Amino acid sequence: MGEGGPGHLFSRAAAVLCGQAAVPHGGDLDAARRLFPEAPEPWLDLSTGINPVPYPCPPLPPSAVERLPSAAEHRRLREAAALAYGAPDPARVVPAPGTQILIETLPRLRAPGRVAVLGPTYAEHAAAWTRSGHAVETVADPDALAAADVAVVVNPNNPDGRRLPRSALLDLAGRLHGRGGLLVVDEAFADFEPEDSLCGHPSPGLAVLRSFGKAYGLAGLRLGFVLAEPDLAAAVAAALGPWAVSGPALHIGAAALADLPWRAEAAASRLADAARLDRMIRRGGGEVVGGTALFRTADVADGPALFRKLGEAGIYVRRFPEAPSRLRFGLPASPEDWCRLSRQLK
Amino acid sequence: MGEGGPGHLFSRAAAVLCGQAAVPHGGDLDAARRLFPEAPEPWLDLSTGINPVPYPCPPLPPSAVERLPSAAEHRRLREAAALAYGAPDPARVVPAPGTQILIETLPRLRAPGRVAVLGPTYAEHAAAWTRSGHAVETVADPDALAAADVAVVVNPNNPDGRRLPRSALLDLAGRLHGRGGLLVVDEAFADFEPEDSLCGHPSPGLAVLRSFGKAYGLAGLRLGFVLAEPDLAAAVAAALGPWAVSGPALHIGAAALADLPWRAEAAASRLADAARLDRMIRRGGGEVVGGTALFRTADVADGPALFRKLGEAGIYVRRFPEAPSRLRFGLPASPEDWCRLSRQLK
Repeated sequence: MGEGGPGHLFSRAAAVLCGQAAVPHGGDLDAARRLFPEAPEPWLDLSTGINPVPYPCPPLPPSAVERLPSAAEHRRLREAAALAYGAPDPARVVPAPGTQILIETLPRLRAPGRVAVLGPTYAEHAAAWTRSGHAVETVADPDALAAADVAVVVNPNNPDGRRLPRSALLDLAGRLHGRGGLLVVDEAFADFEPEDSLCGHPSPGLAVLRSFGKAYGLAGLRLGFVLAEPDLAAAVAAALGPWAVSGPALHIGAAALADLPWRAEAAASRLADAARLDRMIRRGGGEVVGGTALFRTADVADGPALFRKLGEAGIYVRRFPEAPSRLRFGLPASPEDWCRLSRQLK
Repeated sequence: MGEGGPGHLFSRAAAVLCGQAAVPHGGDLDAARRLFPEAPEPWLDLSTGINPVPYPCPPLPPSAVERLPSAAEHRRLREAAALAYGAPDPARVVPAPGTQILIETLPRLRAPGRVAVLGPTYAEHAAAWTRSGHAVETVADPDALAAADVAVVVNPNNPDGRRLPRSALLDLAGRLHGRGGLLVVDEAFADFEPEDSLCGHPSPGLAVLRSFGKAYGLAGLRLGFVLAEPDLAAAVAAALGPWAVSGPALHIGAAALADLPWRAEAAASRLADAARLDRMIRRGGGEVVGGTALFRTADVADGPALFRKLGEAGIYVRRFPEAPSRLRFGLPASPEDWCRLSRQLK
């Protein structure tokens, strides 16, 4: 068994074998239906941060599913990703079947050490480093990150939208690298707000994660990227092996990432939606604590009561067991969905 | 870095970063075009063992690409795979984005030991165990497998079609398990010839790999499975993380695997094609040494000359640097493709 022994792998066995995550996530409507069996169908799923207006997929040529992905298709995807993310070198952009498998893979490429995760944040980071035998601490103060061997920052952060400026992160990466360390920056929600993105600033000791499915509304396609220095990029690519990314993901991903006008329009629309959602939440008495263009997070007087009220109306939002007054709202898309949410927040 | 240190990961860096395998494979038409720049287009690619008559894909619902795969979809795929493979327990069937990533993952789940691969065979097995720091020996005699910690058998074998009987493999798994060992049986080509498949005979110390893309002609979809005892199944699932398999693969895979009549018809057709291909090869002076329903392997008087003759005619077959007289032929599909090959083999 790997360096951490088999034990850490088995703890989440049952959940993972059922295709579920060991840590809670949004998007599981089966769970919503179990919680609220009387709720009207169809559900309005606002429990994720996935763009509800997906990129209009080009038709898939039969070759995309029939043939093994070719080196040329792989290259085209990496070039489109480098263009979209402002990365100078496509060779440092490694695609994967979703960001989650990258979150699983990075911890296995380093000897166990001290890992600091800036939290609270997306729970899979701390869980994956812990599973691989690292000593993980969640810290609230960015200044505490520099003392670790590996620091993990989600920027902008999920769920509270906290941003760390690019300059601070580059400084942190440099300090960590000086001691053989690594800074992992998860930019899953940076597509529509790329101001602080590090993709255009490759740096030793820095690995940036990008998710394709959230901003492009195509989470089922399974596509994510790591941008890293050549040695780490090569190590991740080797761990995934050739052909890890499906033909549909290569084909649709390359088309979508190269479509910069679509992204600009989507960013403007989703940012306007986010502002509208903020107004709606505030009108309902909630205090918006932050978020991104794809979700808004609010504290409300009685979180469990509002979660239940929404659930009974067939609206599923994300709650946080460790912060009962906090709820995260994804964006509605259709006028009907906006009305449906508005009625419950009045 | 993992137990083997980073070095073994970097050796194949450049190739993997380009989406190519470090060991030679069929299916790379770009390579064929470089070898034979004057060849007529379109190429007839007979360099793989992928069914040239793909499963007729059902239309994808938008949810398959837009939403994160659900636990229910995951369960449906595992149940369809268990049905198709004759496995008694869907919980022991772990899907992955292609078999290749399973070949990469299994070696990382065991401490370095002695690995015996029955060869010559598909080269990625020995390469992956070596990369993870195991001492790998390729053995020609099945009796030599039992002395290792891990034995790897491709059954039926690629490229020569050698079969080991089920009883011998179960006996071997039992002996290895008695010493804490593992038998890995890669049944990538067993779908149309399942007589010796071990999927219906779960056994401690046994891991069976199944490929979806080859028999169903959908290699670009990226879908493969490992069938193993609960602990190992859980460890693999944990290493892949949730959502490693794309929505299109879950959707199309479940439909295709449940379609047993299609598979029966495809098996009969491909076996008839294989017999026709054997006759054609023999008429051209080749000696068929074996194969499966999806490819035929032959020794010819002058392998390099025939490879070149075919290549100049735009027909790409698989050659083996270590056995220059040996060529592997995939199946043509259309009457025109059969004629095109027949003309060159006369």
